Amino acid sequence: MPDPDTGLRSRCPINYALEIFGDRWTLLLLRDLILLGKEHYRELLASEEGIATNILADRLKRLEISGIITRERDPEDGRQFIYRTTEEGLALTPVLLEIAAWASVHDDDTAAPAGFAESFYADREAYYANHRELIAELIKRNQDAGE
Amino acid sequence: MPDPDTGLRSRCPINYALEIFGDRWTLLLLRDLILLGKEHYRELLASEEGIATNILADRLKRLEISGIITRERDPEDGRQFIYRTTEEGLALTPVLLEIAAWASVHDDDTAAPAGFAESFYADREAYYANHRELIAELIKRNQDAGE
Repeated sequence: MPDPDTGLRSRCPINYALEIFGDRWTLLLLRDLILLGKEHYRELLASEEGIATNILADRLKRLEISGIITRERDPEDGRQFIYRTTEEGLALTPVLLEIAAWASVHDDDTAAPAGFAESFYADREAYYANHRELIAELIKRNQDAGE
Repeated sequence: MPDPDTGLRSRCPINYALEIFGDRWTLLLLRDLILLGKEHYRELLASEEGIATNILADRLKRLEISGIITRERDPEDGRQFIYRTTEEGLALTPVLLEIAAWASVHDDDTAAPAGFAESFYADREAYYANHRELIAELIKRNQDAGE
């Protein structure tokens, strides 16, 4: 039974995390925000998995309430908002990278760049600090090799 | 739109993983199986979060189909089954530990043993190899300090 005050099923840390991102969409949003650096609602809405706009709005609101992201008016267009991850949100980078590495090994038809898991497991700390550049480098190397 | 052949929304590795454990229960089962070493249906059913028996049976079946766990008859009691993680399942250990460490930092009232995240972040490789012993040690140290 969930606790009547907190709504939590337990204070196990795995369960705590599940209460925040244990649904079919939130981890994809965290991927877009943290790993891919998306910041605008329309970019988040455009992701390949086809999130519905009402679900997107709901999940962004929940992430804001949980302290994982902030929402600010876009200084260049006052009708738009910019979504950015907080320090607490950025601390989920290793979680996302571990999940991505595991899945890229176990899906024979993965969209992850070839060599990602090997490269990540060989130097996790480098990826925590610098994953966007390292992944862009792998993609470029794969493209060059395919030419 | 999900692919009509595979049912997958995309081949992004984060999405692939979500198709396997992106629901409210499967990651708790993986915690029980991988981090806590539970093997029997009745142990899994007894977890604090109160999983329903039909959901438990369904999620175990899905994990077996995905190649994450195996199911064997218990040699000591032929009416029971023993559930064990495969190599592929055990490779999720770092995912679970990263999630647990993040949540133990961000939940002020976490049930994780004090010092877990610091100890994990200081030497992740030691935890991948030996998490049960290291966590048991932290729990003991906390108990001794509280006496």
